[in-house]
Amino acid sequence: MSESSQMEKTGVGIVGMGTVGAGVARLLLDHGDRTARHAGRKLWLTHAVVRDLKKPRDVDLPEGVLTDDLQRLVDDPSVSVVAQLVGGIEPARSIMLQLLESGKDVVTANKALLAQHGPELFDQARELGRSIAFEASVAGGIPIIANISQCLSANQVQSLQGILNGTCNFIVSKMDAEGADYQATLAEAQELGYAEADPTMDVDGTDAAQKLAILAHLAFGARVDWSKIPRRGIDGLQSVDFKYAKQLGYRIKLIAMARLTEAGLSLDVSPMLVKIGQPLAEVRDNYNAVGAVGDAVGPVFFQGQGAGQMPTASAVVADLIDTAVGRTAITFETLELWAEGHDRVGLADAGSLISRYYLRFNVQDVPNVLAQIAGALGKNGISIASVYQHDVDLSQEGIVPVVIVTKRSSQSSVDAALAELKTVSAIDSVAEQFKILD
Amino acid sequence: MSESSQMEKTGVGIVGMGTVGAGVARLLLDHGDRTARHAGRKLWLTHAVVRDLKKPRDVDLPEGVLTDDLQRLVDDPSVSVVAQLVGGIEPARSIMLQLLESGKDVVTANKALLAQHGPELFDQARELGRSIAFEASVAGGIPIIANISQCLSANQVQSLQGILNGTCNFIVSKMDAEGADYQATLAEAQELGYAEADPTMDVDGTDAAQKLAILAHLAFGARVDWSKIPRRGIDGLQSVDFKYAKQLGYRIKLIAMARLTEAGLSLDVSPMLVKIGQPLAEVRDNYNAVGAVGDAVGPVFFQGQGAGQMPTASAVVADLIDTAVGRTAITFETLELWAEGHDRVGLADAGSLISRYYLRFNVQDVPNVLAQIAGALGKNGISIASVYQHDVDLSQEGIVPVVIVTKRSSQSSVDAALAELKTVSAIDSVAEQFKILD
Repeated sequence: MSESSQMEKTGVGIVGMGTVGAGVARLLLDHGDRTARHAGRKLWLTHAVVRDLKKPRDVDLPEGVLTDDLQRLVDDPSVSVVAQLVGGIEPARSIMLQLLESGKDVVTANKALLAQHGPELFDQARELGRSIAFEASVAGGIPIIANISQCLSANQVQSLQGILNGTCNFIVSKMDAEGADYQATLAEAQELGYAEADPTMDVDGTDAAQKLAILAHLAFGARVDWSKIPRRGIDGLQSVDFKYAKQLGYRIKLIAMARLTEAGLSLDVSPMLVKIGQPLAEVRDNYNAVGAVGDAVGPVFFQGQGAGQMPTASAVVADLIDTAVGRTAITFETLELWAEGHDRVGLADAGSLISRYYLRFNVQDVPNVLAQIAGALGKNGISIASVYQHDVDLSQEGIVPVVIVTKRSSQSSVDAALAELKTVSAIDSVAEQFKILD
Repeated sequence: MSESSQMEKTGVGIVGMGTVGAGVARLLLDHGDRTARHAGRKLWLTHAVVRDLKKPRDVDLPEGVLTDDLQRLVDDPSVSVVAQLVGGIEPARSIMLQLLESGKDVVTANKALLAQHGPELFDQARELGRSIAFEASVAGGIPIIANISQCLSANQVQSLQGILNGTCNFIVSKMDAEGADYQATLAEAQELGYAEADPTMDVDGTDAAQKLAILAHLAFGARVDWSKIPRRGIDGLQSVDFKYAKQLGYRIKLIAMARLTEAGLSLDVSPMLVKIGQPLAEVRDNYNAVGAVGDAVGPVFFQGQGAGQMPTASAVVADLIDTAVGRTAITFETLELWAEGHDRVGLADAGSLISRYYLRFNVQDVPNVLAQIAGALGKNGISIASVYQHDVDLSQEGIVPVVIVTKRSSQSSVDAALAELKTVSAIDSVAEQFKILD
């Protein structure tokens, strides 16, 4: 402690002592000297506000720090920055506003709150001359917020492709590597603690869409309502498509994508085919990753743990340090995040998104069916790059899986062709469609 | 320009208008509005100082900007930050000192200068209340300086592994993919402009060692003389080892490595075996990458273009923006880079570095030679993990290549064993040794 005993102190509060809150407290308490060295001042944990004082916690707090009285923190003028780690929308939103109003800068990991109420919270912070830092809200330990908003500031970002949900990546990586089916893999992820008891928000793409909305705002200045982002999750994926994709040289990943096009900003969250050997295809287990292309820097790629106690706490404490030393205030003031009139790009119509597609049909083993598929695709301006007719599925006699890879086509053309093909009697089902990430 | 016409202006100078300088000028001139948006102020290029006014350049400069008179820039009080892009040690060092003395903050891409004179330059900047930013000095477009010194500030970095030289990575990637030999691949790299006419500093590991010295300072607070870092380049690599490595599941990469051990900080630059599928093994062409492990965040990985006009200019302009808005001053003051007494960790003895090893021997095809090898290794405490005796090389009758993979051993044990084996008559040569990156 000697090194930092003469140093200036910054009072720090934590609201919410769940997993991440306990991790933040441990970094501040157990590694105070290190933090002081990196911040040039001591970060001093004064209050940890919880709802239930009796709940067992993963950290030993000094006498007097734990409290269930938010007002004590709010009223303490020695606290200048607070890690607000309560999840969900309310009371998180009200707590955040109360902290800002009392003159505290705020650090948060709550992406749902930012995706939903970013404009209100950021406007309020600006008006009060305060700042909000939110590195931990997207991709946990990967410092993607700082990288986009600061390190790539000489660039116009042209596209972003991310694996932003570790639960989904754990599941699709397993399905790819082991040929396992979705339900069994989800159950395993739940056992290992990689998936919640109710995994809906993760597996249906909501979580990734909320994170993408935040990244799209930073990279493109787009004020996006996350619920308007076209999204599809990984629930419903079938192991057979992982097998066929691999034969074609691809893995299936849940990709959150943003791309500047002539029609505006295209946003999409869905399972996509990613070429084996491309960095995103090789992201395993519960890791997150973000690839970006800047017009000056070219392609850059970041990978790390997207969740978990200490990776997320690492991002929160980096934000606490940035706020304590004054970097956050500068960045916050400069970037005018979510400010009125800041919407510099319109959203492209979802149908306009151009991509190659993987299409799987279950067809009856009769002549002419391929001609009908090719005909419907051709009529809608879709060229076929390759066709794979696979071995008959013995369990469903007479039904043959056909996989078609298209050349670059619009989502609306593909939708139109598939709608037509659904009415063809020799086609048992239009079983699957994925975009292929280029 | 409307958006930025009312804005505050920061005068910017450039010294050295080679490839990178021209790229920086283009970003400032062609994308002034974007830069202004990301900086909250206009970055105004006032002087571009060159030695030879008549040399053709890759950019159109406004009237009056180009000059061969450094003093004009030095004397202009409207210029507060200068991109110093002259390479080599002198006159780069003197120019840098002159700029600092005249009250300018400096941004540089000159890693050789920092690796050699970092302490002097940073002390001088601190004394004068100025800052030096140097994102472009390591790994070009990958913002590794900001990531280590700022984004990972809640962590003790435990290890760093980098592919820091694009020329070398281009060559070893080609040798791996095509089985080509070193000289032919180097010639191809030179034709494509990926290698200099005199590639010595790249291929012998000097460039990577200089960059590693800078990273080691940032991540571990070690004041390292780059020339003391054990280093071996890629000149002399043989295609046969790429083939054997691949059979074992590895690629050969030039790795710059730093690792905190009980014996101190281990630093090493050498060709190493990297497991196929690991992010570093999949870094192709002339890309750079850095993997780091932080004690809180766990493993993180960054990849991008490590050189080239616009990727490097992207890093320089990000630094100009950071300096203009005041973030650099805060970081510079906080981190006490290369400050006296800042050396927090000693260097480990090179022999103490523990690793698995790939060893190749050319042996005479006589009985008992394997026993002799195993004996010498065993005597020095080295356990063998696996042995591969390869097909006889038909061009050298009677000589058989034997590849041994060891368990974890110290460099000094391996050195001792190999010295012994060099005297064994049945061993034609101790042909190769590589560390295996874990």
